Amino acid sequence: MSDFSYFEETSEQPTAPGRLVEIAAELPAAELGPGLLARVLLGEQSMASFVRWQPNTEAPRHAHAEEQIFVVLEGELEIDLGGEVRLMGPGEAALIPAWTQHSVRSFDGPAYQIDFFAPPRQALLKLMERASS
Amino acid sequence: MSDFSYFEETSEQPTAPGRLVEIAAELPAAELGPGLLARVLLGEQSMASFVRWQPNTEAPRHAHAEEQIFVVLEGELEIDLGGEVRLMGPGEAALIPAWTQHSVRSFDGPAYQIDFFAPPRQALLKLMERASS
Repeated sequence: MSDFSYFEETSEQPTAPGRLVEIAAELPAAELGPGLLARVLLGEQSMASFVRWQPNTEAPRHAHAEEQIFVVLEGELEIDLGGEVRLMGPGEAALIPAWTQHSVRSFDGPAYQIDFFAPPRQALLKLMERASS
Repeated sequence: MSDFSYFEETSEQPTAPGRLVEIAAELPAAELGPGLLARVLLGEQSMASFVRWQPNTEAPRHAHAEEQIFVVLEGELEIDLGGEVRLMGPGEAALIPAWTQHSVRSFDGPAYQIDFFAPPRQALLKLMERASS
């Protein structure tokens, strides 16, 4: 390990300003569907969407070009990922490659999860543009 | 909203198999430095790194080509992002653009956070290759 460090300095210039944010207070919100509220942190190469689920809420089956990493933080969510169904809770995550069909639903309780998209999910940008116009 | 849905189906083919994982039990671990253990979920366009911090641990100042979204889940971490210093806790996140210098440290207690990288962080892939060889 002496010849390699994970933490290296650089003389390159940043490509954009950095941001430090309180998710609930500072990030713009978008309603993805009934009972589904997302807060969105948008970068150049990627996007994080922090999603609060009301009980008995569904994200119907869909797919998209953007790669997605889905991480459950609170509550329970059932995912159908390309036909594999699992009840997920905190400590579990899903890798959803481009164009992989998936659906998600909550049951009796609320839930909270993060979606990370690379590149930024175009449909979510479009939804936010419509919400603000 | 009637002419647009966030949830659209498709006839495109997936680019890779999906994965459903228990983070602590199934993801490979990499020691980023003393007191810093990461579990890594690797995609094609992005990577999630779930990082457990021991108390009084430091990620020294560094920068990299990959865009990073930093999300605190447990405990407190002080970040220096391009000269802006903030003590962060759960509910807070940072957008770290390409080549933006940053350092992070824990104090008296442990912490847990997620890093999302787009594209996958090459230095972390290299670290994992070395750990497994």
